[in-house]
Amino acid sequence: MSEAIVPSDNLFSAETYFATQPPPPSLDHDTSRVREFIQRHAKEGKKVVLVTSGGTTVPLELNVVRFLDNFSAGTRGATSAEYFLKAGYAVIFMHRQFSLQPFSRHYSHSTHPFLDFLDVSPEDTDGHEVSVTASERPQLLEVLTAYKDAHQQGTLHTLTFVTVNDYLWLLRAVSQEMAVLGRNALFYLAAAVSDFFLPRQKMSVHKIQSGKGSLHIEMDQVPKILKPLVEVWTRGGFIVSFKLETDQELLIPKARGALARYGHQVVIGNELHRRKYEVVFVSKQHEKAVTESSEDPDPSSQYEESWIRIDLDKDPNKEIEEEINKSCNGIWVNHL
Amino acid sequence: MSEAIVPSDNLFSAETYFATQPPPPSLDHDTSRVREFIQRHAKEGKKVVLVTSGGTTVPLELNVVRFLDNFSAGTRGATSAEYFLKAGYAVIFMHRQFSLQPFSRHYSHSTHPFLDFLDVSPEDTDGHEVSVTASERPQLLEVLTAYKDAHQQGTLHTLTFVTVNDYLWLLRAVSQEMAVLGRNALFYLAAAVSDFFLPRQKMSVHKIQSGKGSLHIEMDQVPKILKPLVEVWTRGGFIVSFKLETDQELLIPKARGALARYGHQVVIGNELHRRKYEVVFVSKQHEKAVTESSEDPDPSSQYEESWIRIDLDKDPNKEIEEEINKSCNGIWVNHL
Repeated sequence: MSEAIVPSDNLFSAETYFATQPPPPSLDHDTSRVREFIQRHAKEGKKVVLVTSGGTTVPLELNVVRFLDNFSAGTRGATSAEYFLKAGYAVIFMHRQFSLQPFSRHYSHSTHPFLDFLDVSPEDTDGHEVSVTASERPQLLEVLTAYKDAHQQGTLHTLTFVTVNDYLWLLRAVSQEMAVLGRNALFYLAAAVSDFFLPRQKMSVHKIQSGKGSLHIEMDQVPKILKPLVEVWTRGGFIVSFKLETDQELLIPKARGALARYGHQVVIGNELHRRKYEVVFVSKQHEKAVTESSEDPDPSSQYEESWIRIDLDKDPNKEIEEEINKSCNGIWVNHL
Repeated sequence: MSEAIVPSDNLFSAETYFATQPPPPSLDHDTSRVREFIQRHAKEGKKVVLVTSGGTTVPLELNVVRFLDNFSAGTRGATSAEYFLKAGYAVIFMHRQFSLQPFSRHYSHSTHPFLDFLDVSPEDTDGHEVSVTASERPQLLEVLTAYKDAHQQGTLHTLTFVTVNDYLWLLRAVSQEMAVLGRNALFYLAAAVSDFFLPRQKMSVHKIQSGKGSLHIEMDQVPKILKPLVEVWTRGGFIVSFKLETDQELLIPKARGALARYGHQVVIGNELHRRKYEVVFVSKQHEKAVTESSEDPDPSSQYEESWIRIDLDKDPNKEIEEEINKSCNGIWVNHL
């Protein structure tokens, strides 16, 4: 790998990125396993959804002690994956190591530890027994049954990443494999992917020492991966991306900007503090509607927005991902 | 809070740090709960160990989307806490949110998910039942029994932090409360604490936008908190700190440097890739030994090192924390 091919202006195209940054060691193994999964479902004419979930890291050292990370527990992706399975799709769940996963997400060790609802019964002739607290049994039975079903039917395939480099290589490989699905492929890109990275050529080998005063970091932009995904890797796949902002005012303009730039189908916008009860679907208007209003000088009329809001005061157990998935399914089926 | 008191040379003393950086909102609540725990055990003359565990984050934005993090799953701290409980101490487990915890660490959702060893029995007159796979029952019974015991006896108190700021404020508060324990206090500082931070006065309010080319970050040094911990906050507490390095050659010199600078009792050095089977205890020699060799011009003779190594090929289930805890207990008891 030559340093000469790293662009001097810090702007990596996807092509330069993959030519200069090394693939993760497990890529070939992961790719061949996901290929089997996709081809099995392609044969049956089944729809396959790729859900990406959790944050990506940017290591600062080759022997990594410190890294930049993106805020995400993986709730959106893990919850959505469950609803996609429930709707009858096969799901590739590509997630950050240790982020939430479908099914086990109900039993976070921090908020709902399973050890709390297991009881040790007094010793009888067979020794002590472990039993489940009665009040927890109905939910556990439901989760456990859905979990066992997904495993028995082979409808859930899990892949993990840690760094943004893992993520980019894996996304490319999986989407290239998904090309055989044609229009039966849905990309649901909920992972919180870093916009910046540190090229391998600029990383320090060992832990950065703190004796030398303040720490300076300069990072390059991660290539906009949606562009080759839409234009090259997929064949008619339906692509839903996410925009997370902390400034509500930026949601719609940034979502429209992404649709204009990449030409995919839907951006789901969410504001950091409202994301559990409010999101907005932004998409291009149907072509007919655009033609009718083509005299309209306002380019914003090309886009339509549709808000989803739920009332957590009324129904605290409601999950907004249920509504997001219904809308996704509706738009996708309309599009086919 | 005035910008004027933030030091212009990026070097914060602990005093300046606490005068300029805001406390976490839950600090008072956390402090009063830990006070009750400490005073209950102080009355009984029980020894109390503070275990810190997991990495700390450095948020880049006030509405935090991105943050710098330190590599740590929290294995060392969570495992050690279990062995301290087993040895009869009361334990304050102060850990990074979502890092591993004592007991539940055996059932990581990624590597050993509990849903995999629960079975749904066929429906009988009472409906379906949940049972534990026979092969998993012995270990689960052991873990569950120790977990329930710690809860029933009130010997484990858990506190969580996320940012390095949370950590610093919480460590100060807890160690000040632990002063009533006198020499019955052990500090086991296994958390991977960031050496750098971004003062609140320099943080951007919203998510940093990626449209503007590369990302530049400049961070200040975190004050060396061991200094006031040793000199001011504690009253005779025994302090064990950790040094993680990726360059094996730096372990001993950095550990000695820390002992010389802060004047505490033990530094446990560990190299990133060898830490599961090899650590080194570095401490000052007993005063008698130092006096005898006081003619020796080599300052390194003031220190003694003792290596702990285990053989994971021979005994793959052995945990090095068991040996670390034995050594800690031995040195501490000698010191009392």
